Amino acid sequence: MTTHKGFDPQAFRAALGTFTTGVTIITTRAQDGEPVGITANSFNSVSLNPPLVLWSLAKNARSLQAFSTSTHWNVHVLAADQEALSGRFARQGEDKFAGLELDESIGKAPLLKDCTARFQCRTAFSYDGGDHVIFVGEVLAYDHGDRPPLVFQSGQYALAARRPREEVRLGATPPPECSYTEDLLGYLLGRAHYQMLHALRQLLDTQALDERSFFILSVLSIRDRLTLDELNAFIAYTGMLATADSMAALEAQHLVALEDDRGEDRYVLTADGREASLRQIALAKAVEEDIAARLGTGDTMALKLLLKRLIANSDPGMPDLWSPR
Amino acid sequence: MTTHKGFDPQAFRAALGTFTTGVTIITTRAQDGEPVGITANSFNSVSLNPPLVLWSLAKNARSLQAFSTSTHWNVHVLAADQEALSGRFARQGEDKFAGLELDESIGKAPLLKDCTARFQCRTAFSYDGGDHVIFVGEVLAYDHGDRPPLVFQSGQYALAARRPREEVRLGATPPPECSYTEDLLGYLLGRAHYQMLHALRQLLDTQALDERSFFILSVLSIRDRLTLDELNAFIAYTGMLATADSMAALEAQHLVALEDDRGEDRYVLTADGREASLRQIALAKAVEEDIAARLGTGDTMALKLLLKRLIANSDPGMPDLWSPR
Repeated sequence: MTTHKGFDPQAFRAALGTFTTGVTIITTRAQDGEPVGITANSFNSVSLNPPLVLWSLAKNARSLQAFSTSTHWNVHVLAADQEALSGRFARQGEDKFAGLELDESIGKAPLLKDCTARFQCRTAFSYDGGDHVIFVGEVLAYDHGDRPPLVFQSGQYALAARRPREEVRLGATPPPECSYTEDLLGYLLGRAHYQMLHALRQLLDTQALDERSFFILSVLSIRDRLTLDELNAFIAYTGMLATADSMAALEAQHLVALEDDRGEDRYVLTADGREASLRQIALAKAVEEDIAARLGTGDTMALKLLLKRLIANSDPGMPDLWSPR
Repeated sequence: MTTHKGFDPQAFRAALGTFTTGVTIITTRAQDGEPVGITANSFNSVSLNPPLVLWSLAKNARSLQAFSTSTHWNVHVLAADQEALSGRFARQGEDKFAGLELDESIGKAPLLKDCTARFQCRTAFSYDGGDHVIFVGEVLAYDHGDRPPLVFQSGQYALAARRPREEVRLGATPPPECSYTEDLLGYLLGRAHYQMLHALRQLLDTQALDERSFFILSVLSIRDRLTLDELNAFIAYTGMLATADSMAALEAQHLVALEDDRGEDRYVLTADGREASLRQIALAKAVEEDIAARLGTGDTMALKLLLKRLIANSDPGMPDLWSPR
């Protein structure tokens, strides 16, 4: 750690930015009736009785005049899928409210939709805060839903991965000399993957199919008419390879068919094959919904985000399965 | 969304709690020299020039007297691994500072170690905030390190999963009729798992071993002297099973040996087997370090936390590999 006594604004901001916040949009209406809104993360709760919240606004902000003269303003705690709205209200010079549907509000301040929580406030105090004004508002009404909230940390948007009260442990604490522990990322990814496959395997059994066949049918359900080599380019990352024999077995089950394309053999899904694949994907989605209900919507979004970042950062060069051709 | 105009304190608190915050400990010293500290998430930045921060304290808090009479206080933005410290300073009636090493501070307020960021402040203003007092402090010195910060949302601790500025996409947008997309959790887990295995597979090739052998050696490295059935209880979740033949192959490679335990066959790792397993685990750790460097320490902690929660919530009943026997 370095102690800074000089105040380089950028370094000071970086230190302050380590304090995580939500993201809010705060709106009011100027005296001429113009709607005004800004993105702010300086919001916080103050008092329960009376119900008070606060936020601060730069004294040189264009919206200071409007917030200083109006009596009512609304705080919107943004949801994880409202990052674009946050960006829009953080920029100047565009019509921030264009195309936005508004709800009825107690005061005249615009009330935005689809947020995690909203607080309709009347200015109680405004205090000096150096180059900012601290607005303290009495909450007249509030509402909140179950949309996971957007998070902001060190200048980046984020999602929250919640930690249960009890530490999550899968097994007993390993002895100190044990170098293979449940904390190894590779172990956790493997076990999570195989546990997600558990229900799918039971379906595959009833379909008389193995895991490799599942991957083959999945790829063909996205990209049909592939040669054996093309098919393998998409499933090679699993360590499994389709062979002429394995394809012949799927042909015998009437799940794939061979087409002759100017002398080149290409595999296509039959109607039965598409049906079998759809049942597998439907099951995978049901398993995912069950997991999402247990983990929470926001946590599941966070997990998918982190997995995508891991995949993008460790991709050995897999061709894009979904690219147009 | 439901609008509440009556103010049930619990419901109001729940709505306020959707606004995500970091967690701080704020310390001062009472006039009798006694160190005082509380956990607070009402902290926020106010002004850059002069550098000001604020937080609020309940008027009925035991520490109000100390914070009202002292001129200096320190704000500590807690790191992800300081959850226990947060809990300690949130409770009453124990010696909160027992056993804590302190750093030198400008004022007399205790300065805690190992935090994400620290702000040493002198009271600039204290304002009325209903049932709370709002303390605004001038920051005299600050420091911050690279420890990922602790997050608090809806009454639970959390970690942040950061979202890069550009959306993370693995492939082109699939056509709307495509039901198998890169957003399927099962796909993401599978692809992440297999990509993590990529480097390991190359090592396994040089060791003339397959994936199943990797799982067998891993289990034996944690729990030695297993019968074939016991071994399979631990690796069955992968869909692979050890057979007498596969074990005979590992015996022929001098990696495992068969011991007779009162007429029962039990497998043990040989020195060569332990060596081979250690090399695999070392590689898995190196791959993980590389990933953690790309994702960030906090994000990797968040990923592991979410994977553990997923595993704990979808465990079909796997025996504990690390439990003592």
